[in-house]
Amino acid sequence: MADASEAVVQPLVQPFSVWVAAVQAAMEQALSSFLPADASAPAVLHQAMRYAVLDGGKRVRPLLAFAAGELFAAGQQQMQRAAAAVEMIHAYSLVHDDMPCMDDDALRRGKPTVHVKFGQATALLAGDALQAQAFLVLAEGAGDASCKLAMVRLLAQASGSIGMCGGQAIDLASVGLNLSRQQLEQMHRLKTGALLRAAVLLGALSGKLLTVAEEQALDRFAAAIGLAFQVVDDILDATADSATLGKTAGKDAADNKPTYVSILGLNASLVLAEQLRQDAHAAILPFGDKAHRLRELADLIVQRKT
Amino acid sequence: MADASEAVVQPLVQPFSVWVAAVQAAMEQALSSFLPADASAPAVLHQAMRYAVLDGGKRVRPLLAFAAGELFAAGQQQMQRAAAAVEMIHAYSLVHDDMPCMDDDALRRGKPTVHVKFGQATALLAGDALQAQAFLVLAEGAGDASCKLAMVRLLAQASGSIGMCGGQAIDLASVGLNLSRQQLEQMHRLKTGALLRAAVLLGALSGKLLTVAEEQALDRFAAAIGLAFQVVDDILDATADSATLGKTAGKDAADNKPTYVSILGLNASLVLAEQLRQDAHAAILPFGDKAHRLRELADLIVQRKT
Repeated sequence: MADASEAVVQPLVQPFSVWVAAVQAAMEQALSSFLPADASAPAVLHQAMRYAVLDGGKRVRPLLAFAAGELFAAGQQQMQRAAAAVEMIHAYSLVHDDMPCMDDDALRRGKPTVHVKFGQATALLAGDALQAQAFLVLAEGAGDASCKLAMVRLLAQASGSIGMCGGQAIDLASVGLNLSRQQLEQMHRLKTGALLRAAVLLGALSGKLLTVAEEQALDRFAAAIGLAFQVVDDILDATADSATLGKTAGKDAADNKPTYVSILGLNASLVLAEQLRQDAHAAILPFGDKAHRLRELADLIVQRKT
Repeated sequence: MADASEAVVQPLVQPFSVWVAAVQAAMEQALSSFLPADASAPAVLHQAMRYAVLDGGKRVRPLLAFAAGELFAAGQQQMQRAAAAVEMIHAYSLVHDDMPCMDDDALRRGKPTVHVKFGQATALLAGDALQAQAFLVLAEGAGDASCKLAMVRLLAQASGSIGMCGGQAIDLASVGLNLSRQQLEQMHRLKTGALLRAAVLLGALSGKLLTVAEEQALDRFAAAIGLAFQVVDDILDATADSATLGKTAGKDAADNKPTYVSILGLNASLVLAEQLRQDAHAAILPFGDKAHRLRELADLIVQRKT
């Protein structure tokens, strides 16, 4: 029988659910510290900003940033700033998207939306201020200046007129139209895909500047999970109830918005989601075992129930 | 009689009005090149962004950025990016500020406001996308990465919750209240002062990293002209007509908003504006003759009629 001292010590690999909970907890604290205090003037604006960001969401983008960062042994501080910046952009987009002149939604993550709770003017300003805060968080802190500047460029592109905002504009213009599957994909590639891609790439850039091959592999992964995310969103919108989702279910159909389910049908949408999950796995094969968190996240995105 | 070859060649100093027109023309071209083309998808969003930024405005912030940049022999490209970024932030804030849930203004620079022409949803998105574009323009291009990152931080602070957006939130909360002169100053220091300060400092940073003494002098200058700008705005709102202003005159009084004229009266407001002009001149005395464009701009801001 081998002596205890001879036993090979295996590095402790946390189960996925434990890792997810740890990242979510760390991010809640990081986001709180990167936002102005509730009591500091102008207090109502800061309360609205914190309400929009804290205590809610699955933190899919921060999880992607951490998973990609850990691939390149990024530091906690750097990953937290990258993840927080992307999450603040995401949060501001939800605040503006929920407003009466856009989707007019009263419920988000099971809570009243920001404009319902704080009024439209404060919601508009809180969203605007959150976007500025995202770039501030990214530009502050330690780290290589060239790397940080690359992250600012990436985030600005991903959230602007040829990224997230552009996707929302195409979405607006598509209500009531019969989009082709290709047009629907292009819309979602911008509307949600661009920011999910930014989460992956900013997380990786927290570790180091990427080679072309690394960036391409992460890009393919991000494209697959970005599309999968939307396909699953459409499936859930068509099949789950509002209480489970924490937002108004069946809203896309009611709003006459084109979805994967309305274009492909439910079964083909389920098949597509599974295919995209496998594409995501294939894209990160070159990273080997180190990419296990990214693989698990691809699974989570496709298999989630909310 | 001296030979022609012995004559001292004086550097050509452009008259102020010629310099202003040259900067305005250069900026119109620079802003156009830094914005996505009208025809590129999503076209309506890009049209709204260009409509909000181009062909209008006195370009006070770009003029300040150029005047401060020329103080430190900054390159044209660097000054144009700094000035364009600040102007895009300014333009997006006007788009959102004019929306029905904020000031509900139908006229801006003599033209229909963005939401009147393109609808509220597109106006909201165009403002959001312009903010992202501002940070993109600042982070792209040649230049020292540390310097550019400092500019990103400055612009994010100036436009966020303890800058411009914060000032707008205080403005919202002050309607119908009897503000003290001190409270009114604090609001304007954030609402318009922060971005004017950013214009001066980003312009200067286009040339070089600043010493503490240089930054303090420019800060004092910016504080004086920032306040002067608002005092003169209030005077014009109370005395000029809509056709001259290119926007709805007398709106502050109609909206029951506190102004310098409502708190100090018209004559004391005129005296204050002149005092602030002199403060601005005093602040930049250390820069000597080189600061003549900044001095002329302080005069322009106080003596303008629109």
